[in-house]
Amino acid sequence: MLETTTSAIRPPDEAAMAAARELHGRLTKPAGSLGLLENLSVRLAGLAGACPPPVPEPAAVAIFAGDHGVHAQGVTPWPQEVTAQMIGNFLAGGAVVNAFARQAGASVTVVDVGVAHPLPAPASDLGAPRLIDASVRRGTRDLSVTAALTRDEALAAILTGVRVADELIDAGAGILLTGDMGIGNTTPAAALIAAFTGVDPLDSTGRGTGVDDATYAHKVAVVRAALARHKPDPADPLGVLAAVGGLEHAALAGLILGAAARRTPVLLDGVIAVSAALAAAAFAPDAVAAMVAGHRSAEPGATVALRHLGLDPLIDLGLRLGEGTGALLALPVVTGAVRVLHEVATFDSAGVAEK
Amino acid sequence: MLETTTSAIRPPDEAAMAAARELHGRLTKPAGSLGLLENLSVRLAGLAGACPPPVPEPAAVAIFAGDHGVHAQGVTPWPQEVTAQMIGNFLAGGAVVNAFARQAGASVTVVDVGVAHPLPAPASDLGAPRLIDASVRRGTRDLSVTAALTRDEALAAILTGVRVADELIDAGAGILLTGDMGIGNTTPAAALIAAFTGVDPLDSTGRGTGVDDATYAHKVAVVRAALARHKPDPADPLGVLAAVGGLEHAALAGLILGAAARRTPVLLDGVIAVSAALAAAAFAPDAVAAMVAGHRSAEPGATVALRHLGLDPLIDLGLRLGEGTGALLALPVVTGAVRVLHEVATFDSAGVAEK
Repeated sequence: MLETTTSAIRPPDEAAMAAARELHGRLTKPAGSLGLLENLSVRLAGLAGACPPPVPEPAAVAIFAGDHGVHAQGVTPWPQEVTAQMIGNFLAGGAVVNAFARQAGASVTVVDVGVAHPLPAPASDLGAPRLIDASVRRGTRDLSVTAALTRDEALAAILTGVRVADELIDAGAGILLTGDMGIGNTTPAAALIAAFTGVDPLDSTGRGTGVDDATYAHKVAVVRAALARHKPDPADPLGVLAAVGGLEHAALAGLILGAAARRTPVLLDGVIAVSAALAAAAFAPDAVAAMVAGHRSAEPGATVALRHLGLDPLIDLGLRLGEGTGALLALPVVTGAVRVLHEVATFDSAGVAEK
Repeated sequence: MLETTTSAIRPPDEAAMAAARELHGRLTKPAGSLGLLENLSVRLAGLAGACPPPVPEPAAVAIFAGDHGVHAQGVTPWPQEVTAQMIGNFLAGGAVVNAFARQAGASVTVVDVGVAHPLPAPASDLGAPRLIDASVRRGTRDLSVTAALTRDEALAAILTGVRVADELIDAGAGILLTGDMGIGNTTPAAALIAAFTGVDPLDSTGRGTGVDDATYAHKVAVVRAALARHKPDPADPLGVLAAVGGLEHAALAGLILGAAARRTPVLLDGVIAVSAALAAAAFAPDAVAAMVAGHRSAEPGATVALRHLGLDPLIDLGLRLGEGTGALLALPVVTGAVRVLHEVATFDSAGVAEK
């Protein structure tokens, strides 16, 4: 099934991109005056194979949640129970992602792909986030001592991501937003980014939720040791995800591939999302055409990954929360960029003189 | 009346800011993980004198339009008629500002403070932008040969801006967004920025709608000559606006002062807005507390002005369109930042463990 998905991912449609560029030149604004929004709308025309591309709405956030065996190494001061507790907070609508999703009119779906602790009962309110149980195992193994996942486990999580993309798009979503929750998940993200881009772990590892100097040095050492132990091969993305990844990272890679196969844009959140995007691009390089970088996370690895993917982030405000919050803040920029191609008058139609 | 407005502008409320900082520490997210959004929400608490401050909605865009005698110097390739034609486009809903305002749910008000050419009849559609006729004169004089405005003319435009702020806030607006239209208006903006910050005209002058190298060099020379002729005194902001400003720049300064006097945030668009913001800050330094920098315009003078004001822009996407478009793109970031203080659960209330 993964092969079916990756083989459905096609390069962008050059004719639609050329049509979007030409249309931009006729709209009532100085040429190029919308900066990166013009490039973005051209990219989305190429993805859709149409000019104008559909306005990307409604939006659906998919939050993949998992726990991490490497938590035992003390890479974060937060207890592992917080992953399950925060899912309770998502389902009750009390997290930042909920506030931003309500504002943006986006749905929220929480997918348990590997939470270690028991989950709270989902809320029964209409409009409350939906919880999908797709647990592969109750947290990964400790990547600093063994492979985090078997290849089959990593594949199962990827396929869950593909399935969630299909379900959300079938239900009408015009754009998918990546979300994540998992105490400790910036450690596997740092390892994935180092594995796929070749940078030193010092450049791919950040302070996550805000660790002190000693914990940060230890975290870098853990990532370095894991890479030395597993020697992950970037040409084998399934192997990389299994060795040093996480279940939510694998599922996010699947979500991205699923969206790309359906020619639907996927708005990336922070460092977890972009580490997963590197895996998706390793499976199918043309998947990058479906990716929009929502923001530049404060985590240094995010910038490394975005550079590798050739993506310019839309928002750069020092966020490092995850959950999908950075992607949600960027959503109006994406819809606005496309809306211009639908709604703005041309010089001709508006009777405005050109220079 | 201007003295009444400026004397009503008070410093931010330190107690409300402290309360917002303290609340941020209890919300279910790692401390500081919302980056600049946390600072922004703290500033808005200080402005409102309340924690949480009101969610800044609904939003109202005020587009001030005027023409410029310096157009005769060939500082732009666009004909002056385009100012009036684009107002027709705004009123018909066909401009980028209209598309972004519809998306954001913001109202649009167009204010003629000095358009040179006859305006089209306003649309009769309900929901169409409103047109206010507050013309001071049909375009400024050529600032390269004489003062652009008399002090009385500049004051009249400022007071129009104050009045528009009051009307929009009285009608319920929770945040004002600056918009502008005026062929040639980046030339007075460059002169204002050089006058208020002391930078060389080379650093405050940009290519506006995209002029060629020869026109750019000429534009810098025009700004330099105007400053040498008028020697505007930054301690006399009315004199600066009269000598080298524009009617829309003066009116925007008034809008900002009016918003600040009502403790209502004003979201700044691009280089025209920030040049006017420098004037507002010269009239009343505490007005800066009401200012939120929507974006970093591609015009170099905008960055100079933002640095002088100590403001960090929310969006940085190379836009240089004006109209209020950059402010509108940033609006969801502002409302989102405040919404967090209203809607996000605390660790206690959500039963989430802390580190």
